[in-house]
Amino acid sequence: MSPAGGWVLGVDSGGSGIRVALRRVPGNGPAPTRSSTVPATVGEKGVDARSLLAQVVPAAEELLAGAGARRCEAACVGAAGMAALGGDLHAVLPSALREALGVRVLALATDAVTAYAGALGQRPGAVVAAGTGLVAVGTDLTAEGGWRRADGWGHLLGDCGSGAWIGRAGLEAAMRAHDGRAGGSHALLERLHAVFGPAPELPALLYPRADRPAVLASFAPEVGRCAPADPVSAGILRRAARHIAEAAAAVCPPARPGGREEPPPGPPPRPDGAAGAGGMYEVALTGGLLRMGAPLLTPLFEELQMQLPHARRVAAAGEPLDGALCVAEALLTGDLLLPADPPMLRIVC
Amino acid sequence: MSPAGGWVLGVDSGGSGIRVALRRVPGNGPAPTRSSTVPATVGEKGVDARSLLAQVVPAAEELLAGAGARRCEAACVGAAGMAALGGDLHAVLPSALREALGVRVLALATDAVTAYAGALGQRPGAVVAAGTGLVAVGTDLTAEGGWRRADGWGHLLGDCGSGAWIGRAGLEAAMRAHDGRAGGSHALLERLHAVFGPAPELPALLYPRADRPAVLASFAPEVGRCAPADPVSAGILRRAARHIAEAAAAVCPPARPGGREEPPPGPPPRPDGAAGAGGMYEVALTGGLLRMGAPLLTPLFEELQMQLPHARRVAAAGEPLDGALCVAEALLTGDLLLPADPPMLRIVC
Repeated sequence: MSPAGGWVLGVDSGGSGIRVALRRVPGNGPAPTRSSTVPATVGEKGVDARSLLAQVVPAAEELLAGAGARRCEAACVGAAGMAALGGDLHAVLPSALREALGVRVLALATDAVTAYAGALGQRPGAVVAAGTGLVAVGTDLTAEGGWRRADGWGHLLGDCGSGAWIGRAGLEAAMRAHDGRAGGSHALLERLHAVFGPAPELPALLYPRADRPAVLASFAPEVGRCAPADPVSAGILRRAARHIAEAAAAVCPPARPGGREEPPPGPPPRPDGAAGAGGMYEVALTGGLLRMGAPLLTPLFEELQMQLPHARRVAAAGEPLDGALCVAEALLTGDLLLPADPPMLRIVC
Repeated sequence: MSPAGGWVLGVDSGGSGIRVALRRVPGNGPAPTRSSTVPATVGEKGVDARSLLAQVVPAAEELLAGAGARRCEAACVGAAGMAALGGDLHAVLPSALREALGVRVLALATDAVTAYAGALGQRPGAVVAAGTGLVAVGTDLTAEGGWRRADGWGHLLGDCGSGAWIGRAGLEAAMRAHDGRAGGSHALLERLHAVFGPAPELPALLYPRADRPAVLASFAPEVGRCAPADPVSAGILRRAARHIAEAAAAVCPPARPGGREEPPPGPPPRPDGAAGAGGMYEVALTGGLLRMGAPLLTPLFEELQMQLPHARRVAAAGEPLDGALCVAEALLTGDLLLPADPPMLRIVC
């Protein structure tokens, strides 16, 4: 086995479960994957390393056995909460993964960084990961610039434009219609009634729940469905689009005076998302919120054009699990371009 | 004791404790009062009657003994959650208060109704009760009109313009400044840092708390303090003022074609808040949010003038406990004008 060849492991640990994938380097075939819908435990010490390992190690052993391999040379674990709640993971994972799977070099990344790497690979720009919550990260690939991050503060302090934000705004507009207050939407009130029952009983349904942000986000698709015929819903999505673009604009590297980021005068941007002529920064969106489709994406693309004229919108190439594999492969081949900038991305040898 | 004379009891049960007052009817001296800072328990069956009685009965007995009286003829219990969570109170209080204190006639009111009666007495109009949360109630005193209510849906679905709403908006603006997003306020970011510590650690402080709305509302005074010199803070209070006036406008009886509610052409409204010539509806504000003073009240008075041109703003005459006494007295004397309109206000004989 050459020093730059072998097997790499990618892990994506999030609120809805854990996914593990194995890839041969060099090689570009599909990476066999194992998924669970059981998330890692989050306790007083943050994300619990033992609960993560209890899923990752057997899944990786299975994948290795299936590939006829014996060890992973490199791995990248991307986890929600790695930046703020990753103390136990940082303490336990390096030696545990070395002993169990032979991992020589390990990257510990916040899930926003693996989302970035999944969407843009190792190219400079900005990525917004939007689902129930919303976070934006960006980098110019320099060590000094490091990673820039915006929002991701949760449904009470931010996550502006996220599924929870859109759903909450839609439910507020429905309650306004119920009350006869200004700014109400009878279309959304009808949808509230269809989804949750009588409006006055919604508080008693919502507030006792531990997963309030998810309950709020579950109403976001209703706002999207109403938007074509309901100005209040359309207004909510226009504001969400503005907030999402604001987060992208805050993390995207600024246009440089040299004009290298100016739109190239030649052929139009390549639709496959690869860096085109002129070396413009790229901006991509990833996450479940994109499934809302045109009612959100039409105003969002307009806002991105207005707020980030120096960045080119591209389709996300892949998911956070692909990003974890991308980082693990770069560790193995020694060509990691993304900045190692703890706690966003930490490399342990 | 004449049938229209005797002692009446008022009770105000809220999130911050229970207050009990006794008044001689007829008579208009100060009503002796007992207060506790222990709220009634709220369990799966709603507000727990036993926990309320355990405080109210001894306090009432003490007040009666101090007054040299033996029984209360009438009582009004105003309680937060009476409308939605008052089942146990409705089932238990009538017989319990009759047996313990001799109460012959009892009013069970939601706290918004006692806030109304405390502010406007038995005159028609609208009252906004604003503290951590916000609810507006109004009535034209007709049985058909009953009570109108707006908002009060809690910090995720409404309470627009409340302390929690203002504080949440202020913290969001601070986090925007931290991120470098549009719409941020560095003044509020400085206040966030002074009050809560480093901005990135605020989510870990806030989300595990059970009293999140109170934590959010605790930041509202900082928004008021920043507003004179910070356009973002001033904008938050301008939006809050608009929302508060929208709630008042939704519950205030509409101007009647007869023009009885038109501003009287003669002398200006009486400053003492009594119904002036012309019989205009009255609108009053009550609750802790008023303590924010001019930064909120200046835009709020402007919004009320714009949105409720047919109503005259008056100072609240008293507090919810005064409102409970007002209703109890009207029960005893047989001149209750406020509409008995369950679950807002229910009379039990």
